[in-house]
Amino acid sequence: MATAGAGRRAVMDLPHRQVQTPVFMPVGTAGSVKAVPQHLLEALGAQIVLGNTYHLYLRPGHEVVRRMGGLHRFMSWPRGLLTDSGGFQVFSLNELRKVSADGVEFRSHLDGSTHQFSPERSIEIQIALGADILMVFDECTEYPADRQRARRSLDLTLEWARRSKQYFEAHKHEVPWHKEFGGRTQSLFGIVQGGMYPELRRESAERLVEMDFPGYAIGGLSVGEPRELTREIVAATLPLLPADKPRYVMGVGYPDEIVEYAKMGVDMMDCVLPTRAARHGLLFTSEGRLNIKNRQFAEDQEPPDPNCRCLVCARYTRAYLRHLMVSAEPLSAVLNTLHNLAFYLDTMARMRESLGRGIPPLSPTAVRAGARAE
Amino acid sequence: MATAGAGRRAVMDLPHRQVQTPVFMPVGTAGSVKAVPQHLLEALGAQIVLGNTYHLYLRPGHEVVRRMGGLHRFMSWPRGLLTDSGGFQVFSLNELRKVSADGVEFRSHLDGSTHQFSPERSIEIQIALGADILMVFDECTEYPADRQRARRSLDLTLEWARRSKQYFEAHKHEVPWHKEFGGRTQSLFGIVQGGMYPELRRESAERLVEMDFPGYAIGGLSVGEPRELTREIVAATLPLLPADKPRYVMGVGYPDEIVEYAKMGVDMMDCVLPTRAARHGLLFTSEGRLNIKNRQFAEDQEPPDPNCRCLVCARYTRAYLRHLMVSAEPLSAVLNTLHNLAFYLDTMARMRESLGRGIPPLSPTAVRAGARAE
Repeated sequence: MATAGAGRRAVMDLPHRQVQTPVFMPVGTAGSVKAVPQHLLEALGAQIVLGNTYHLYLRPGHEVVRRMGGLHRFMSWPRGLLTDSGGFQVFSLNELRKVSADGVEFRSHLDGSTHQFSPERSIEIQIALGADILMVFDECTEYPADRQRARRSLDLTLEWARRSKQYFEAHKHEVPWHKEFGGRTQSLFGIVQGGMYPELRRESAERLVEMDFPGYAIGGLSVGEPRELTREIVAATLPLLPADKPRYVMGVGYPDEIVEYAKMGVDMMDCVLPTRAARHGLLFTSEGRLNIKNRQFAEDQEPPDPNCRCLVCARYTRAYLRHLMVSAEPLSAVLNTLHNLAFYLDTMARMRESLGRGIPPLSPTAVRAGARAE
Repeated sequence: MATAGAGRRAVMDLPHRQVQTPVFMPVGTAGSVKAVPQHLLEALGAQIVLGNTYHLYLRPGHEVVRRMGGLHRFMSWPRGLLTDSGGFQVFSLNELRKVSADGVEFRSHLDGSTHQFSPERSIEIQIALGADILMVFDECTEYPADRQRARRSLDLTLEWARRSKQYFEAHKHEVPWHKEFGGRTQSLFGIVQGGMYPELRRESAERLVEMDFPGYAIGGLSVGEPRELTREIVAATLPLLPADKPRYVMGVGYPDEIVEYAKMGVDMMDCVLPTRAARHGLLFTSEGRLNIKNRQFAEDQEPPDPNCRCLVCARYTRAYLRHLMVSAEPLSAVLNTLHNLAFYLDTMARMRESLGRGIPPLSPTAVRAGARAE
């Protein structure tokens, strides 16, 4: 059992991939990690990619994806996939939404058409998409939120978690690859909410754990709160979650943050930062951040990161990457993203090495065992 | 000596690459074949890529490229490169230009600043860029042009060809990689003009051949004339060019056109079509063209071209490529371009095979022999 402080190394046995944890999950919003061909994503060592239910529901539509055999087949990605519940995106729409106990009514950012997400609808969509891991439909509590508001939001989220689980249990065999994978199913993760109130986080965690999910996420973070507060909430919540199940902090973070969280015992993280920043010319390196657009790089013959072994750093100079960015060449996003993802994924690979030989497999294995016993 | 009809297979021994001809050259306008990383361009079998002098002069500037070691180093492309003279682009600027016997004054499409290209200036820039092949500065005669106009334009072009050659001979040792390649130099190609008048084309070709260039291009085509007229002019001009030197038709064409020209004895072609069309969703296949945006492909599980062995056709469906295009995903341009280039390059590879064992090397070999003798 290998842990460094509270950090731990393990394996999460998903239907499409044995995922080595702690793991960073690149975001592939609409069925593509933006600008990166899948074979290069494989070469980078990406083990599991996140898809956004809200986007895929609107385009191409979950029924299309289901008929194409699920998201793995549709995007030709043979490794792990996780879908969010759509909740975070819908709540980010601001004026475009109307919340009730039953769910959320919202308007598409694409064409203004009206749609409804409920816990049942979110799980139905996520089963059609067929990621290895799906998430309960939750209300992501905004920041700041007073105690009463955070409390109400927490109660709603717990009720929605119950309904999500109930729908999932009744329909989990409908996942497109159910037969192909010997009767295995997806794993539905719970999400801890509770705003920035440790006692609400405790209540949320305890009531979720009673419902018995195969993995738990800490949601409602990176919503504008100070970074130190994010860390405090994560630190206060982690010990409340079962040690033998994966623990996922959603939406973080900067390279030093993902290292810090891995050391605290977080197993899974995702963030748009490496991919989105790349498209704006922000490169993460072992020597800090580079804004590759800056004039100072116009004749810089160094690779983006002299300590990086990725295919971008092996071949291209800062001067060339700056030229591509300034000239709005489409290759700019490709190369910047490849480097940033390499930096994130290598950071986590080194973290896993530093954590030694590993603890026993995390719980989605049990999901398989359960499926086999049926 | 392998020729099929007038078509011929040969080798062109450039400093950076032994180029198998007939060859199609992808266009890398600003130092990047749009959306394609260089290692994938190598994997596609691209032997030589075209750079645009006008664009590289404006951004990042030829002096920057020279200080970075030339265009090969700057863009990390170890194989063949060819630069155009900037003439075609400058003459495409319409109101932004002013032509005199000395050269062309024009305004940058980027910031409106005023610049001057002359034969000497164009060659100076092209030596700094350091492509394996550079082109004389020519006036690309517009279509339609009456006989008098085509005649004047032809005379100007021939005078500019003379000045281009004179400047090149005096400065050819300044190419950035001159020492690194054992004293080899670039090869300066002449360009036949003459509008759509066969007798003017003849005069242009004869007077150019007297000047003795290591290769000859047929320019002033694909400027709006009917396709049959292009073919006629090419057919009338080719026999006027020396059989032991490369013959290059600039700016063509569609897949069936490049096949036709190769069969007529054209050795080199370039065109933005496969790359530009890709970004607009037009895919070339063995079964014809696909507009991948079309709704009919929304659930089409076939690869773009069932007869193609490229990495796109091996892995992705039309449904997925349509989704990427409709969703404006940056991966769309990457994958569409990879396929179209694979289709063009494979078409030429098959053409070379059908042409048998090949004729003796084309003339840039003599350029090397000459350099060695110095």
